[in-house]
Amino acid sequence: MQAVELIRKKRDGNVFSTSEIDWLIAEYMHEQIPDYQMAAWLMAVYWQGMDAREISDLTLAMAHSGQELHIRDTVSTVVDKHSTGGVGDKVTLAVAPLVAACGVAVGKMTGRGLGHTGGTVDKLESIAGFRAALSSAEFMHILMRHGIVLAGQSSDLAPADGKMYALRDVTGTVESIPLIAASIMSKKLAIGASHLLLDVKVGSGAFMKTVEQARQLAETMVAIGRLAGLHTVAAITSMDQPLGHAVGNALEMAEAIAILHGTAPQDVSDLCYHEAAELLVMTGKAASLSEAERYVEHAVRSGVAVAKLAEVIAAQDGDARQIEHPALLPAAPVRSMLVAPRSGFIASIASEQIGVVSMHLGAGRFKKGDEIDHRTGLVLHAKVGEYRSAGEPLVEVHARSSEEAAAVNDALLACYTWSDTPVTVGPLVFETIYP
Amino acid sequence: MQAVELIRKKRDGNVFSTSEIDWLIAEYMHEQIPDYQMAAWLMAVYWQGMDAREISDLTLAMAHSGQELHIRDTVSTVVDKHSTGGVGDKVTLAVAPLVAACGVAVGKMTGRGLGHTGGTVDKLESIAGFRAALSSAEFMHILMRHGIVLAGQSSDLAPADGKMYALRDVTGTVESIPLIAASIMSKKLAIGASHLLLDVKVGSGAFMKTVEQARQLAETMVAIGRLAGLHTVAAITSMDQPLGHAVGNALEMAEAIAILHGTAPQDVSDLCYHEAAELLVMTGKAASLSEAERYVEHAVRSGVAVAKLAEVIAAQDGDARQIEHPALLPAAPVRSMLVAPRSGFIASIASEQIGVVSMHLGAGRFKKGDEIDHRTGLVLHAKVGEYRSAGEPLVEVHARSSEEAAAVNDALLACYTWSDTPVTVGPLVFETIYP
Repeated sequence: MQAVELIRKKRDGNVFSTSEIDWLIAEYMHEQIPDYQMAAWLMAVYWQGMDAREISDLTLAMAHSGQELHIRDTVSTVVDKHSTGGVGDKVTLAVAPLVAACGVAVGKMTGRGLGHTGGTVDKLESIAGFRAALSSAEFMHILMRHGIVLAGQSSDLAPADGKMYALRDVTGTVESIPLIAASIMSKKLAIGASHLLLDVKVGSGAFMKTVEQARQLAETMVAIGRLAGLHTVAAITSMDQPLGHAVGNALEMAEAIAILHGTAPQDVSDLCYHEAAELLVMTGKAASLSEAERYVEHAVRSGVAVAKLAEVIAAQDGDARQIEHPALLPAAPVRSMLVAPRSGFIASIASEQIGVVSMHLGAGRFKKGDEIDHRTGLVLHAKVGEYRSAGEPLVEVHARSSEEAAAVNDALLACYTWSDTPVTVGPLVFETIYP
Repeated sequence: MQAVELIRKKRDGNVFSTSEIDWLIAEYMHEQIPDYQMAAWLMAVYWQGMDAREISDLTLAMAHSGQELHIRDTVSTVVDKHSTGGVGDKVTLAVAPLVAACGVAVGKMTGRGLGHTGGTVDKLESIAGFRAALSSAEFMHILMRHGIVLAGQSSDLAPADGKMYALRDVTGTVESIPLIAASIMSKKLAIGASHLLLDVKVGSGAFMKTVEQARQLAETMVAIGRLAGLHTVAAITSMDQPLGHAVGNALEMAEAIAILHGTAPQDVSDLCYHEAAELLVMTGKAASLSEAERYVEHAVRSGVAVAKLAEVIAAQDGDARQIEHPALLPAAPVRSMLVAPRSGFIASIASEQIGVVSMHLGAGRFKKGDEIDHRTGLVLHAKVGEYRSAGEPLVEVHARSSEEAAAVNDALLACYTWSDTPVTVGPLVFETIYP
């Protein structure tokens, strides 16, 4: 086999065999295929796409390229949950303990934030002492003992994805549904959970801008799961405005705790309870969504859910008192309130720009490896559809200094559009793709 | 400017500015843009194409990437001629002295053969002592003194093309009309003739398989010439069967000499006289093609044309006696005649396979840098449309040994198809593209 023949084959719209895909990935990882050939192949895939079997084969080849946890060999039912990333998306932080509190094990490896979207590990690291870097032995030990583990993603996991993603990032080949799906699913397959719930974000603050694109990505990932033996369900959910009120690491951690107490804003709470319920149905823990929702409600009311979060935090050397008393979470030295510049209904909040403002306050990374400040961010005091009179609180800026707070005012106000007449708010869950 | 932005820009079908193209090529040559980004950009160009101005800008950027001869600064009218490559294509060897004999200077740099097509330099090197590697000073000196020079192509000429072609060859991005056109024309612009005649081959033995493809390539190159200030005409000519009778280096040299004497097969002679006449009209030496054809005929009959070839061969240290007495050209030790296996009209001769057989006899290169044997090759004793009875001479094999001659018999016979009824032969020149 020759790499240039495989490039031409894909360029001309042909379908690869399993052994061709295995060969391509293996040779690339052994540095027998140089980056320039892989770049040309990726651009050919960008144009020609791949069929479901090819995508599944590519995903498996990437999953097999490094360490594999095979966790379901030890714990037969263990769920994983993944979001394609949004602004104010603290859903995983709440869904994982909710599901674990209902008796279904959760084994989650999670990434860091980049650009305008946050990362679950960063939010967890708001907690003093919390350790995300776990060995596989520690991961399995905590999972088996506590029924939940929230680890940072090991670089040994699907290294072919890491290598290919770095290349895609600099060769204009990121925006390909098959490659995005394979990238996400390869890490999930390497972890080896039995059930996976995907939250595919769509809207102005998400990578997928239209429901059609999001559906295509969701269907592609669900098909990979089906072909590769991982029970996968994908919810397509709105990222037209930030989720909940909090944007920023410690601020979102606090809101996740509020969700587990049942005291958080309704949009984000409803989404978390719904996703937790989907997982309970998927795994057979509940016979229906309504039964599952009762279990979730009980876990919240009884305090079991928040106790589960405290338990896993403690197991990973974090200060569980910060879960019991969120006031102990790190706080920014400066808080300043931006008020409504006019009266009216809020017509839209530009999520991506909100994420960018939060990044400028220190809560996110401009580039990989940047330090972040866990304390900073934004608290939205009004969401789309709500009415505010001029001068009423709009958004609270949590900053390192009053200069930094003042510097973002104009950009923040530009995130809002207003209407004199009532505004309809769209649904939070557009649709759900089942295998 | 960032390379990844330019990749995305082309991927998404946008048009580059002149300064973007200049930047891309300059940074690539300074190794500030790695091969993997250039490979992705080339694959994006493969899909999205380029408009005429972009292609001309790319060509100029490549032409400016190394040494430039600016020959028309010294000799105001100087012609160049280029063929996209065929089997038995000795046209340049005859056209150059024909035009020079009519008083129009010819400054030609020419390449080596690869695969099934031969190279003009290889054919010239059949002549003892002939030296194709000339310094720019020697090139200009011979051109000014003799009105003709036939040099090998300097690697300092348009090095961006050399670097990009090597990358295209291994990344499946050769087959792109804009890139093929820019590759050819960049070297022509770096030489700096005032007039260029392109011979775009089309058919089974050529890179362009259809007249539509060939027309697209021809029009693209003529447009580059127009935008870059090089008067360019392109003839689209047939490569459905080998040109003339001879295939192989010394054999084709001998046939070129026969063309200059007016004793060669009609197809190849007619094409050479026609192309020479086009160049005389282009440069204003003749007012019409018919007047130009009279000049060419006179150059042949008077012996001035063949004397011009002998003159330039001698100027480049070649043994001119081999031009005067072609029997002195190197000859293969074994000649064996393959006879017609049946009676009938020859319906087709697969040019590419004829070229491959010749390569197996030692006359061509499987890969760059391979040694070739100037003596070997084939002499076709019958062409498409001719009738032969079973047992009559079909093709003469010139080989290094009788084993090597015998080894190609089956492949050679497979190059021919036969018909019981007369066969029409298509035109040799399909059309000519003027600026």
